[in-house]
Amino acid sequence: MTKETIQDIHVEKAASTRINEVDFNNLTFGSVFTDHMFECDFKDGEWKNPTVKPYQPLTLDPSARVFHYGQAVFEGMKAYRDDNDETWLFRPDENFNRINKSCARLAMPEFPESYFFDGLKTLLDLDKDWIKKGFGNSLYIRPFVIATQSGVMASPANAYKFIIICSPAQSYYGGEVRVKIADHYSRAASGGFGYAKAAGNYAGQFYPTNLAKEEGFQQVIWTDANTHEYLEEAGTMNIFFRINDKLVTCPISDCILDGVTRKSVIDMAKDMGIEVEVRPIKVKEVIEAAENDSLKEIFGSGTAAVITPILGFGYKGDKWELPKLDSPYASQIKNKIMEIQYNKAEDKFGWRYKL
Amino acid sequence: MTKETIQDIHVEKAASTRINEVDFNNLTFGSVFTDHMFECDFKDGEWKNPTVKPYQPLTLDPSARVFHYGQAVFEGMKAYRDDNDETWLFRPDENFNRINKSCARLAMPEFPESYFFDGLKTLLDLDKDWIKKGFGNSLYIRPFVIATQSGVMASPANAYKFIIICSPAQSYYGGEVRVKIADHYSRAASGGFGYAKAAGNYAGQFYPTNLAKEEGFQQVIWTDANTHEYLEEAGTMNIFFRINDKLVTCPISDCILDGVTRKSVIDMAKDMGIEVEVRPIKVKEVIEAAENDSLKEIFGSGTAAVITPILGFGYKGDKWELPKLDSPYASQIKNKIMEIQYNKAEDKFGWRYKL
Repeated sequence: MTKETIQDIHVEKAASTRINEVDFNNLTFGSVFTDHMFECDFKDGEWKNPTVKPYQPLTLDPSARVFHYGQAVFEGMKAYRDDNDETWLFRPDENFNRINKSCARLAMPEFPESYFFDGLKTLLDLDKDWIKKGFGNSLYIRPFVIATQSGVMASPANAYKFIIICSPAQSYYGGEVRVKIADHYSRAASGGFGYAKAAGNYAGQFYPTNLAKEEGFQQVIWTDANTHEYLEEAGTMNIFFRINDKLVTCPISDCILDGVTRKSVIDMAKDMGIEVEVRPIKVKEVIEAAENDSLKEIFGSGTAAVITPILGFGYKGDKWELPKLDSPYASQIKNKIMEIQYNKAEDKFGWRYKL
Repeated sequence: MTKETIQDIHVEKAASTRINEVDFNNLTFGSVFTDHMFECDFKDGEWKNPTVKPYQPLTLDPSARVFHYGQAVFEGMKAYRDDNDETWLFRPDENFNRINKSCARLAMPEFPESYFFDGLKTLLDLDKDWIKKGFGNSLYIRPFVIATQSGVMASPANAYKFIIICSPAQSYYGGEVRVKIADHYSRAASGGFGYAKAAGNYAGQFYPTNLAKEEGFQQVIWTDANTHEYLEEAGTMNIFFRINDKLVTCPISDCILDGVTRKSVIDMAKDMGIEVEVRPIKVKEVIEAAENDSLKEIFGSGTAAVITPILGFGYKGDKWELPKLDSPYASQIKNKIMEIQYNKAEDKFGWRYKL
């Protein structure tokens, strides 16, 4: 993959590094950031001023549109370091394409490919010491775009910032996860922007998730807002169901994020000889499968954890536990994908991107 | 109405005023702000540090949750000055209650009533010269709450800012408004947070509205995301239909904002002897009424314009124009409500609030 460079990036190095203050063996996900950030401004109809500079606060007018009308999208991706100190990204073109799809749906300007990749390369080159070796260690990368124009008119802004910040991460373990299947609240409307990685898709999930936590669940699996009969996604993860030896996941739609890990799981599972069905799945089917013991696994897929096994689920007050398997698909597939991410296996899919 | 004061507000006055730089006869809505702002922090589980200070930028970490997960809600209200230089608000309790409903749905902390009213009073007292006399002139007030905690974990923040900024406004005229009735895109999901005045409810409307503009419409009337058969709201306005001499508007739901102007229009219309029906309205009914000439008016209600007459509408490629009436309900009701807002008429409903 080659990307044309269209403009030089202004680089302002931090006077000193904070890396020695960080305990890399005791990281909370998303809480510590590297020495630098990438920033670029949209003004007068074009993206300009690409800059890598010391990580620092943003200064925005209190009337900046992002605070009032939610024009804000983001991506999540990771950089991995292999045993030879080479740095890799995983399918970054997918993230680049998706942030632009998100922008388009929120009437935000699309971002040039070269800025995205050149910004990322320049930033990661400066902060490469923050990408630690070791299977499971990574640098979580958060590109995001926010509307910065001042003024509280409810219309698309004419000024934006595109920013990339990075946070070192260890192998992600979110604890034991049991999920509540939504029967009242919902995440996304058909015809809405649930497929976009937009800030507005997240805040609305917190309250129903808090209610689920009071019932002993850690997350919610969202169902279609119309009937609550069809399973959609888990808000930060796409969802897979293993029924006997078959893996089933629902198709993407305008309500469901087109997860990079989701499509990688589908391809990898097929490559491993697992039958995969991408089709609408009813809650009823999953409950019946749980009742007749054909439901073997449920797992979520996402950038942070790759795959998150789900131990049980609840629906309308009833609860089901999943069997404990010796070699679940979840860990088999996770390991296969991670081996590609960390350059420990052949990359027959062309997913790795060398920095 | 009395509100208990629970804590003194720290006041830091601006060294000078910017009021003389402002052309009050040539204001763009929401673009100029007064000399001061109110700010209050939620930290360690409580709201603290209520401060009125010079209007100034916010400084936030680039990982602040509002940029990533959309925990952001707001209100819109106005202050009016009567001929005796008294300042009035219009049903501010409704705004206070609603911002807390919005906060609850987005897992954000509710705000104390005393802070809200004391903050507002202190701020408006300092900036009272910005509230100009004259029917139609007002000071638009924008209270809002944003998640300020640093860190990109997708979970409710533990730190927030509650801020009030104010912008002088003239009588609002949004130009000729024709609306497109949505048949594909949608604004809110049943079981979602469409009823909340949340930032995330706005950004998703801009792109479909841009498409409608390309077809010659200025705004979109949203329909239910499930069938697109039922009319909901216009995103920044609730919607009323006059069929013969009857006014019809749809009931509020979890998809529809409980507009302060909407409920005032309903009460005022009834008081004027107009029959009002609050019931679900099908697109089909409105089209049939347009076809048989029983559809006399469509108008939107909202804080900025009170009432916005709609001149025509489109649906699935067809367009209808509304008749031009000599004394439409829209202007009759608007005038009646404004007379209460500007203390020019008896306030039999108890809507005025003297500062």
